[in-house]
Amino acid sequence: MRTKDEVKHDAIIQATIKLVNKIGFVSSSVSKIAKEAGVSPATLYIYYKNKEDLLTSTYVSIKQLMGKVLLKELDDSQPIRDSLKKIWLNLFDFTRENPEYFQFTEQFANSPYSDLVKRTEVEKYFEPLSRIVIRGIEQKIIKDISFDVLRAFYFHPAMVLSNARLCQEFKSTPENVEAAFNLAWDAIRL
Amino acid sequence: MRTKDEVKHDAIIQATIKLVNKIGFVSSSVSKIAKEAGVSPATLYIYYKNKEDLLTSTYVSIKQLMGKVLLKELDDSQPIRDSLKKIWLNLFDFTRENPEYFQFTEQFANSPYSDLVKRTEVEKYFEPLSRIVIRGIEQKIIKDISFDVLRAFYFHPAMVLSNARLCQEFKSTPENVEAAFNLAWDAIRL
Repeated sequence: MRTKDEVKHDAIIQATIKLVNKIGFVSSSVSKIAKEAGVSPATLYIYYKNKEDLLTSTYVSIKQLMGKVLLKELDDSQPIRDSLKKIWLNLFDFTRENPEYFQFTEQFANSPYSDLVKRTEVEKYFEPLSRIVIRGIEQKIIKDISFDVLRAFYFHPAMVLSNARLCQEFKSTPENVEAAFNLAWDAIRL
Repeated sequence: MRTKDEVKHDAIIQATIKLVNKIGFVSSSVSKIAKEAGVSPATLYIYYKNKEDLLTSTYVSIKQLMGKVLLKELDDSQPIRDSLKKIWLNLFDFTRENPEYFQFTEQFANSPYSDLVKRTEVEKYFEPLSRIVIRGIEQKIIKDISFDVLRAFYFHPAMVLSNARLCQEFKSTPENVEAAFNLAWDAIRL
């Protein structure tokens, strides 16, 4: 069971996502977010120093959740392709089911706020993925690519394609998703 | 030489991009945009019916410009791969040099305003590309994929990777860009 603190914390994060997606970063004041979350501004300030802290924490929280969902049930003894496929499909489902997270993180990454987040702070949630990728490169199963390139060609397409607003004509049937995964895999495999 | 009308038109579009990227869609009122463009709101209303019209026109203008830049010097007698490579590299350069356009179109595509733009209105600017893709599919050079899939796996990675804010570690040397193109090509080729 979650503590009262955790429940409030979560309500504030969800309110931030909702409001920012609706009215943007600039208009989303701390007081409006507190109102949306059903807490007083004073309560919000117990958890977050200021607006910057609240926005960057929301971003990091989404990335943390993504790391958890994407890397669940990962088994280091599986073949590289199976592990990376599982992660890819988890990401596809996650973005399809939570378009509001994707909308927030995309906006955030394109905004000056993104400069306030240290890469390492996010990367730590994806550490098991890095391990698999390094192993795949060493075993000459996938190309010798950086994390930027992997993200652009392997993960970003899953987020774009699973987003109903961006890809209205793509129907996510098991066959179509499998075919799409093959494009992702063909991009990175040796 | 451009007419006075065209100059004003362009100033309004540029002001819209600048302001929306800075303060978001909701806060960007017609009067603020007019001010940013150095025209009176009355003048702005000569060209655009309302805020929705202004935002969707800005989006379509960027897509029109992209179509022009991406498809320049295209030659139908070239091999499919050469044509598609030229377009990919043009897109990479275009996004790298104009991150503000990418920021606007990404926000726009993720917003409810995108529902106001007919797909066909944008697609017409990319008609020569569709022709090449259909030819590539018929000749069994590339996979039989929809435009949504092509966009997610071939074009979107170029926009992500060339964006300095999203990919801070990727250095766009000719070798790195060539290697990145190969991932895009491997994704779609048969």
